[in-house]
Amino acid sequence: MKRIAIDMDEVIADALSAMLGAYNREFAEALTIQDLQGRGLPEAVHPDRRSKIEDYCRAEDFFRHLEVIPDSREVIAELNVRHEVFITTAAMEYPSSFTSKYAWLQEHFPFIPASRIVFCGSKSIIRADYLIDDNVRHFQSFVGQGILFTAPHNIHETGYPRVHSWWGVAALFSEL
Amino acid sequence: MKRIAIDMDEVIADALSAMLGAYNREFAEALTIQDLQGRGLPEAVHPDRRSKIEDYCRAEDFFRHLEVIPDSREVIAELNVRHEVFITTAAMEYPSSFTSKYAWLQEHFPFIPASRIVFCGSKSIIRADYLIDDNVRHFQSFVGQGILFTAPHNIHETGYPRVHSWWGVAALFSEL
Repeated sequence: MKRIAIDMDEVIADALSAMLGAYNREFAEALTIQDLQGRGLPEAVHPDRRSKIEDYCRAEDFFRHLEVIPDSREVIAELNVRHEVFITTAAMEYPSSFTSKYAWLQEHFPFIPASRIVFCGSKSIIRADYLIDDNVRHFQSFVGQGILFTAPHNIHETGYPRVHSWWGVAALFSEL
Repeated sequence: MKRIAIDMDEVIADALSAMLGAYNREFAEALTIQDLQGRGLPEAVHPDRRSKIEDYCRAEDFFRHLEVIPDSREVIAELNVRHEVFITTAAMEYPSSFTSKYAWLQEHFPFIPASRIVFCGSKSIIRADYLIDDNVRHFQSFVGQGILFTAPHNIHETGYPRVHSWWGVAALFSEL
């Protein structure tokens, strides 16, 4: 049995699509995921509009209505039988997100008990064997093995095992 | 430099006095800290009233107005210069407490950055050298050294180094 820590945004919760949708609606633009290869949404928009992206994330219910990343629920439910799964999210960046994130997890991942949910800042505090995350900065101080979950912004990152989907995660852990 | 994880309730935030005050007011009783030696408030009251204690903690602003445990701010500010201090609180027991706990920390411990605040359930997920906590159950799965901070309910606990005050903590870490 291994302990697997799993990030939320862009790994199990599709925050990017929601941000992109909100941005396109507000500015009548048609930015797509293709425009975000190798960069985050804030880097893809005019500097004057960057604070708007932050504002979307600060809205109290932004994280409440995100779509679930395909297949994450099914694969995590299965991993959770054989391993110790924790959801570890850097929620401290948006303190207004706490309640929404918790409610979202209760709705979509009811099999993860509250005792295995962690809202943190730095993931250096996490003691786990694996961390599945879309953000390589979290791997730098993480004690276990980082597994990079593909997101548009991280496609040029190297140096960590990468999975492109939740079935990739399932395959990776099928032997453990 | 060591990493020191510090609990909130009964260690830096005086939740017990607030619960006791609320209970005494509601039921016109005069329970004191002396009545709580070796047991928690829920165990000291009539079973029919136990759910009331839970209700106090579930109120959204309960954790917002707690008193600071004497000398915790001064000692932690000093520890924070030489060590890596994280605040690690089992907030998942009361999801309604997230925002209040965060705001309380910002007010009373502004020198602790958001990146070093952790809301968790099980403290087995915490990677630190020390955990200062009033609850021995958190030590059982903690990887580092537990340090028991004296609270009325834990006076009969043995098996862990104990500190009776924040000056006790300062003395313990003065050599590290």
